[in-house]
Order: sequence, then structure tokens, then C-alpha cells
Amino acid sequence: MSQYRKIRQKYSLMEMFKTPEIAAEITLQPVEAFSVDAAIIFADILLPLEGMGFKLEFIDYEGPVIGNPIRNLSDLHRVRVADPEEHLGYVLKALELVSSELNGKVPLIGFAGAPFTLACYAIEGGSSPDHLLTKQLMYREPVLWERLMDKFCQTITAFLTAQVRAGARVVQIFDSWIGILSPSDYRQYVFQYHQKIFCALKASEIISIHFGTGTAGLLSQLAQAGGDVIGVDWRISLAEAWNRVGSNFGIQGNLDPVALTAPRSIYESKAAEILEEVAGRPGHIFNLGHGILPSTPEDSVGALADFVHEYSAKLRR
Amino acid sequence: MSQYRKIRQKYSLMEMFKTPEIAAEITLQPVEAFSVDAAIIFADILLPLEGMGFKLEFIDYEGPVIGNPIRNLSDLHRVRVADPEEHLGYVLKALELVSSELNGKVPLIGFAGAPFTLACYAIEGGSSPDHLLTKQLMYREPVLWERLMDKFCQTITAFLTAQVRAGARVVQIFDSWIGILSPSDYRQYVFQYHQKIFCALKASEIISIHFGTGTAGLLSQLAQAGGDVIGVDWRISLAEAWNRVGSNFGIQGNLDPVALTAPRSIYESKAAEILEEVAGRPGHIFNLGHGILPSTPEDSVGALADFVHEYSAKLRR
Repeated sequence: MSQYRKIRQKYSLMEMFKTPEIAAEITLQPVEAFSVDAAIIFADILLPLEGMGFKLEFIDYEGPVIGNPIRNLSDLHRVRVADPEEHLGYVLKALELVSSELNGKVPLIGFAGAPFTLACYAIEGGSSPDHLLTKQLMYREPVLWERLMDKFCQTITAFLTAQVRAGARVVQIFDSWIGILSPSDYRQYVFQYHQKIFCALKASEIISIHFGTGTAGLLSQLAQAGGDVIGVDWRISLAEAWNRVGSNFGIQGNLDPVALTAPRSIYESKAAEILEEVAGRPGHIFNLGHGILPSTPEDSVGALADFVHEYSAKLRR
Repeated sequence: MSQYRKIRQKYSLMEMFKTPEIAAEITLQPVEAFSVDAAIIFADILLPLEGMGFKLEFIDYEGPVIGNPIRNLSDLHRVRVADPEEHLGYVLKALELVSSELNGKVPLIGFAGAPFTLACYAIEGGSSPDHLLTKQLMYREPVLWERLMDKFCQTITAFLTAQVRAGARVVQIFDSWIGILSPSDYRQYVFQYHQKIFCALKASEIISIHFGTGTAGLLSQLAQAGGDVIGVDWRISLAEAWNRVGSNFGIQGNLDPVALTAPRSIYESKAAEILEEVAGRPGHIFNLGHGILPSTPEDSVGALADFVHEYSAKLRR
């Protein structure tokens, strides 16, 4: 959004995340501009890492970088469980501001990265084409892996619970990198930790969305791990995804973000196709299959939101 | 392999591809060193692009780059159908040398990139994180897309057929980037072209392997498009992949290449798991789910090949 870009020119990403008034303003921009049905807090999935003792930086044109990645058991002593109020109070404050401003107009979504995805960044120190170091540590260092994943679980559970206390109605767990694992590795090295978080959330009656990309071969396990809604990317048809996940779950997705950079006729026909696959089943949240691309025309976002409402209503008639 | 690295120090990749004696020598190295059951010609999936009029370079630490990518209909005039003998004769000559040297010891595999993956490189000009330009051209320029894909189809069909004449017993089509498409886009923009190639190969009684990565949501369509064997990466269990593909097809895969950089107990247990999933069904080709990583210990490759033979034999008893 051009409104967002204006603010972005003046501040670094970290300044924007850590200034609750700015984060709140950015969160509200799309709610005011488009007919969207929810707000999602302006933050980053990696922010909990900083509170855990990792040196986190967002570098322009490069992305997030961790200055002190963890590679050995001897590094573990500097990784602590983050305290939501002490280390992530700025996110909680922003949630309070947005929640009060929204006043129930649309629900507010809080979020965090999933343990596996946080582990990828904490170990690699940034993005990676093959996540060699993460997988090698996972295979070779079972004790370190277990302790690290436990710290992520505790941090994320506490943070998401605090987000709900601060005004989030729903929380989303982003497992952006989970698609690099085989189903067998997911079962052995990840499942139990992710299940732990979703169990804890459920026990606190917190509604959660469990999102990952590249999950077409993992979906039934993801659903087993937990979440009320499973978020899917565009690499599987919505109907097939829902079949694998099971009808006890809601489903979120699944338009290719690139389609929204194409002419209107293209993204409308794709959105229609998705809504037709839903075939009136309750529990679908229309969304892009991953983050919006910077080159997306602002008008297209508004037009898509309107189209989804109109076409859904038409299908219901 | 250290033998390979010694040659690589003296020549550029393109020199190695284009000198049939060198390409043949490299092809034979793993056959001589390990108990593998096939040889695959040393070449690159993108070589046909050069014969089609694209300026192809392999740049160290960067990968393949196309100096004159295609972006508009007005660029199409400089794209021609490559002639296998004229433009890719060096690959055919290498196949002849290897075939004569192998003398039937193990089958020789030839290969080429799939039209979609060639299109990704031809349009983006190299690797891309989101393939925005490729998808936008596909959505916006139906005439250009159709003509471009037709030229790829003709080039690849002729090239693979010539490879069989030169001594390849099997050909493999690598669709490395296909996993970025939604099932609906695959059906609309790719399926017909890929099917055309596999139909033509079948008509010539050529045995083919159809490989892609990130295909867990596309597998049934890939199999419908054709090929005798469907190659899968590690992001789906072998049993599930085979169920989706159907028992009329052979299947190739599916060990995560990273596992082969781990200690022996790790990759052996993963290989055993795959072979147990095969459960004695005929038509499985054990392979990594994608290319071998440069950091793989040479000894591990030999040990894995031996293990697969021994464990398969044990399961058959």
C-alpha cells in the first residue's frame, strides 16, 4: 500500500515493529481501505527470536539475518525462553491499540513462527536454498534439537496466549519452511513439538490457524498436529487439501499471490474456481496462498476482496 | 567425486559439456566407482536453449544465466527449434562414446529439461524466487506462451529421440520448477505440451522417466501427462506418491539428498524405510529425490548403493 510505503521510507522495519502506534496504524490500513474480514497484526514471525537471545536484524533487499546462529550444544546456554511481556511487549501493546480501535468491527489475528521455521533461521542464520545446516543438526544432534525445540514451544505458546489476552481473537502459526521436510522427518523431528503448542492453545480455548507452504505431502500430519484451521498454499487444489485435512477442520487459502499481479479477469476466474471448489462447505477462509507480493496493484486487492464477497453470496443463492 | 573435481579445475562447465570425450569420462566415473545400476549422461537440462537461439552461460557460484531472455511476442522471431545433430551433436557424440564403452553393462540414461522448466529460465533469464515474469507471461500472453511451448516441445522431442538413436536406453525429462504451479495452472498452461512429448516418445517406443520436484499436489496430473516412470522428490512418502500416480507406472525416488550428507545410520534407516514402503512392488528405481549435494561424502554414495542392493535382496527373501 502507498500509505505503508510512506511510513516505511521514514523508519526501519524494526522501528516499525517496535513502535506500537506505527504497527497499529499499519495493521489498520488494509481494514480501512478494503472490504477484508479480519485484521492481522503488523509484526514478523521471527520477533520471538530476539527475546530468546538471538541477534535479529532485518536487512534491506536481503531479509532477516541472525548474527549469532546456533550450531552446537555449547551454544545452547545463550538461548532462553522469551517472556512475552518483557521481550515482546511492543507487539502486545500494538494488539491492544488495534483491538480497541477496531472495537469488534473485524476480528484481529495475532501470530508467530512455528518452532521448525524459527529453528531454520536460528540455525542457518538467514535464508538458505537447501537448509543443510538445519537438517544436519536435526539428524546429528538429537539432544540439542530437542532442547531447542522445547524452548521454541514454550516461547511461542506463552507469546500467543499473551497475544490473545492483548486482544487477538485468533492466532496463526506460520510454518513457512516446513515443506522442505519429508513426511517421515516431519513425524520424527517436528510433529510432537507442534502438537504440544496446539494442545496448549486448545486447552486455553484459543482458536488457531496452522499455516505452512509446500505442504501437499504433509497435510494430514499437519492437521493431526493441530489447529482449528489449516492454511494451504496454491500448490494443491483446495478440494484435495480439504479432503486430506478432513472435514473437522476449517481451511484457509489458496490463491497464488502471483495471480493477483495479473489482469482482473485472471485473478477473478481463479478466485471463482477456489470458491466453487469450496462448494458451500462451512469453514473456508479465502486468502492468498502466501504473502502478498510487493508488485501487487493496490486496486487489485480491493477488487479481489469485493469479488470474493459477491461471488460467495451468488454461490449461496 | 574427487576425480570429477580434478577435471573441473581445468575446464569450464560448458567446455566439459561440449567435449564428448570429457563428458563421456565423467559419465563413466560413478559407474566404475559405485555399484549403481545405470549411467546418466553428463550434460545440463538447459543445453537445448542454446540451439534455440538463447545466450546460455554457466557462471561459477551463480548458476545458469540467459543473456537474452524472452519477454514479448516481438522477441519470438529469434527463438527457433533446435536441431539435435546441428546444435546438440556434442551430447549425441558423448552418448555414443559412453554407450560403446558401457557395452550393455548398465543402461544409459539421456535427458532434457521439460518445456515448463526451460520456459522459466528462458523468460526469467536465470533462477528466480517467485517466477513472477514466467507466470505473468503465461497469464497475459497466451499466443506467445503457446508458440514458445510448441518450440520447446519440438526441440525436446527431437533431441530425446536423437539421444536414443545415439545409445540412450531411457530418457528422463526434468521438470525442476513445475512445483511452483497450482494444479489448475498446470492443467491450463502446461499439461497439453508435456503430454505431446510423452505421446511422441511412446509412439517411438522410447522409455521415459518424468521427474519433477514439489509435485505432491500435481502427481496425478503428471502421470496423466505421461512417462513410464514418475520421479518424485522427498516431500511426499513413496507409498502415497505411488498411490496417486497409479500402479501402471514405475516410480523413482525418493531419498532427501541432505540425508546422504548425514552419518551412515541416518541415511541407511531412511533408505530402508523407502524400500519397505515399496513392499516388493515391481517398478521402483531407488534414487535421491533431487540432485546430489556437493558436500556429500563420496564414500557415502558407494555405501548407499551397496546398502540398497543388500536390503532389497533381504526384503525379497
